[in-house]
This record gives sequence, C-alpha cells and structure tokens, in this order.
Amino acid sequence: MHYRLIVEYDGTEFHGWQLQPGARTVQGELEAAVEQLFGIPLRVTASGRTDAGVHAVGQVVTFRAERELAPDVVRKAVNAHTGRDLAVRAVDIVDEQFDARRSAQSRRYVYRIWNRDVASPFWRRFAWHVPQPLDVAAMMRAAATIIGERDFSSFQASGCDAAHPVRRVYRSAVAIDASLLRYEIVATAYLRHMVRNIVGTLVEVGLHRRDEDLAPLLAARDRTLAAATAPACGLCLVEIRY
Amino acid sequence: MHYRLIVEYDGTEFHGWQLQPGARTVQGELEAAVEQLFGIPLRVTASGRTDAGVHAVGQVVTFRAERELAPDVVRKAVNAHTGRDLAVRAVDIVDEQFDARRSAQSRRYVYRIWNRDVASPFWRRFAWHVPQPLDVAAMMRAAATIIGERDFSSFQASGCDAAHPVRRVYRSAVAIDASLLRYEIVATAYLRHMVRNIVGTLVEVGLHRRDEDLAPLLAARDRTLAAATAPACGLCLVEIRY
Repeated sequence: MHYRLIVEYDGTEFHGWQLQPGARTVQGELEAAVEQLFGIPLRVTASGRTDAGVHAVGQVVTFRAERELAPDVVRKAVNAHTGRDLAVRAVDIVDEQFDARRSAQSRRYVYRIWNRDVASPFWRRFAWHVPQPLDVAAMMRAAATIIGERDFSSFQASGCDAAHPVRRVYRSAVAIDASLLRYEIVATAYLRHMVRNIVGTLVEVGLHRRDEDLAPLLAARDRTLAAATAPACGLCLVEIRY
Repeated sequence: MHYRLIVEYDGTEFHGWQLQPGARTVQGELEAAVEQLFGIPLRVTASGRTDAGVHAVGQVVTFRAERELAPDVVRKAVNAHTGRDLAVRAVDIVDEQFDARRSAQSRRYVYRIWNRDVASPFWRRFAWHVPQPLDVAAMMRAAATIIGERDFSSFQASGCDAAHPVRRVYRSAVAIDASLLRYEIVATAYLRHMVRNIVGTLVEVGLHRRDEDLAPLLAARDRTLAAATAPACGLCLVEIRY
C-alpha cells in the first residue's frame, strides 16, 4: 500500500525535515509514529525538505507498507504519536507511480514579515520582524519582476545540489494587512534558500537600498549580489500541486 | 509622572497578570523592567487582571514615577528587559486622575475556536480546539441574545468578588473564517470567567445540546445551569476604551 499524508508543522522546534541522529526532525517524528503503528521501521518521503525553523501547512509525505489500514485509522494513529506541533491533516491511498517529489507540478510558499517598530509576541514564531518602515508598493513591483522561466543562480545558496538553476515562477506577489506583510510565490521548484534569498532582497527594495527591477540581478547570475538570506521562521510551505 | 503603557502578551507562559511569589506573571515581569529603568521598586496597575494562559493585545497598564523620561525611552527600555512573549506597543503620559481600571468605559475581548477534526500546530496556543462540527448560525443567533444590560450571575465563577452581577454588553457576535471561529464581546466590565463561561455555553448551542435563546439561562441566575468554562488559551483582551 502506498499512503499519502498532508502534514502541517510549526517548524520552530524541529531541526528541519531531514532525519538526523540525535536531533528532532519532522521525518524522524513521522517515521517513529508509523513504526509504532505498523510495527516495523518504514521510510517516509516528502515533496521536498524544509530547513530548520521552516513551517508547513501542506507538506506532502508518502510511505509504503504491506499492511492495508483505513486512511482515517492511519491519520488518527499518527496524530496520537506525534507532538502537538505536528499534525496530519489528511491521508489517502495513491497509486504505485505517485512520487511526492517528482510528480509535483508546482509548490506554493508564503513568507511573512511583521513590519512594525515593536516585535509581536504572537508572530515571533511565524514572521520575520523588520522594524523599519517598508515601501510596500516598491516591493510589490519588484516581486513581479522575477515571474517567468529564469535562471535563479543569484538566489541560490552555496551547497545547493540542483542539476540546473532554471526555475519557472508562476506567481510572486506581496500583500499587506495592517502590520503583517505576506509574500507568496508559486514555482515549479526551488533552489536551496531561493525563497528566503528573494525575500531578503525584496526587503532591501522596501528599504530603498536596491533597485526595484530584479532582472539585472538575475542576469548577473551571482549570489554575492543578492541580499542576505531572510530568517527561516517567516517561511511556510503552503501547497503542492500535482 | 503618570505613565500609561499599551501591552501585548502571549499568555501561554505566564501565570496570569497578578503578582505571585515564585511564578512568572505579567505584572511581575513589568515591575522588574520598570525597576531596572527607574532604579527603585514601582507598582504597576492594569485595566483588569487576566487569568493564567489568557492573552492580550491591548492591556492598559499605568505606573507613577518621580523621574520624567520620554515615552519612547520608557517603551524601548521596558521591551529590552522583558521576554519576547511580552511587548509594550505604546507609552504616553496621562493626567493624575486617569485610572486604568475605573476610567474604562468598555472592554473588548476575542475568543478563538479552532473548529476542525485535526488540531492545528499553529493555533494550539491561541485557540480552543473543538473537533466536532459546530452549527455556527445557531451560535450567532445565541450570541445576540445576551446583548444589553443584564444580570450575568449564571456566567459568574465562584470566588468572583464583584459588588453586583449586572453588566452591559454592547456587542456579542460570532464570525467564522475557514476553520477559525471568532467570538467578540464588548461590555462595560466582566464577572470572573464570564467570557469563557459564555463561550462554553455557545459551543453547547453549536453542538445542539442547548437552546439558542440564552435569556432563560440568564433569568435563572444559576451558575450550575451554564456550561463548563472554556479553556483560557482561546481568550484575548483586545481593547479598552476610555
């Protein structure tokens, strides 16, 4: 049986997705829970790894097990065996060919910025606090300049093992609601730290430290020209489309 | 000088507002911070006490000090000396007669309910998880039946030291946004646990365990007829009007 889970997590107290000895990770927590349920060690696979501190409301996870259990039984049992900062929202059975990572058509991320002089006790886990006033209109215009199929080398972290640096961005937009700024991006896939490097650069646009047109930055294909990586806590994996 | 602070806190890790030896409280944290700043112990007063686990985005706090400091200096210094789950949003100087508690005309609270089968990793600190489906329309109608000047004895916790049980409710309304239900109440003042007792009762209406018209329950003036107190984590003090 090939099970698919839709998983949510508050990434604050996880050392990211990937299994690490001696560290609490999302993969480790889920594998321990399915082992409890099925009685044997099982490997779980995600649509993509998330870094330490990054959140998810729509991570897609699959695993194979000999035994057939009702999806709802799997959902309840896994939820019973994981911390309150991780929840399985839905479970279904998928065909043998389904691949959480390779079958994905697009991935949607949201990055939140708390833009007020005083930090928020409520958003401290889920948003980057930028105390200086931001020119949100300039950030909106800048965000639109990266839409399309482009070479994102300038936003690629060192150590990224991607085969090539070209990605298609379907949506890249900034919205604001009172003090909360929300950046949304939908793309085929991402290079390592790509969203956080884009956000760091958009914030520099909002501070008038950088030009609104990011096309020349992309054309330069030089990571040293983009801004510092925005903190992990603001990032959330929202949805994978297949 | 008479200073007024607008204070926000995530109540999860506080044992409520009121000073208690050996426990972390909002009052204790603020008094330690102003003592650091002014160099002498000072007493701070709030618009009202909040219970352990209750949050605030608009708590009003005052204190008197001989020394005159710019409001912005006070704000920054207090924020530097308190935890990240407490923030002073604004500081101003008020006249000698101002009384955070007695001068208040009305107080607005919001209570949040996460109404989905699976708990949310993101709302677990800030909402009560009710997994059963709720009849929200019935709750909306029930909420409206307590508006007006009424005797709230049926929603008064034992140990409440109020002089009389009559309060004026200006607003009492339920709203829903996807899985998040939001109850808002504005009243002159509240009896002990009044909002949480109203919410517990509204949830019973939403589960069809209780009549929508709460007037007979109020008329009975009997606490044993209302529902159990809703958990503290869903409650937030939003605004005090003077």
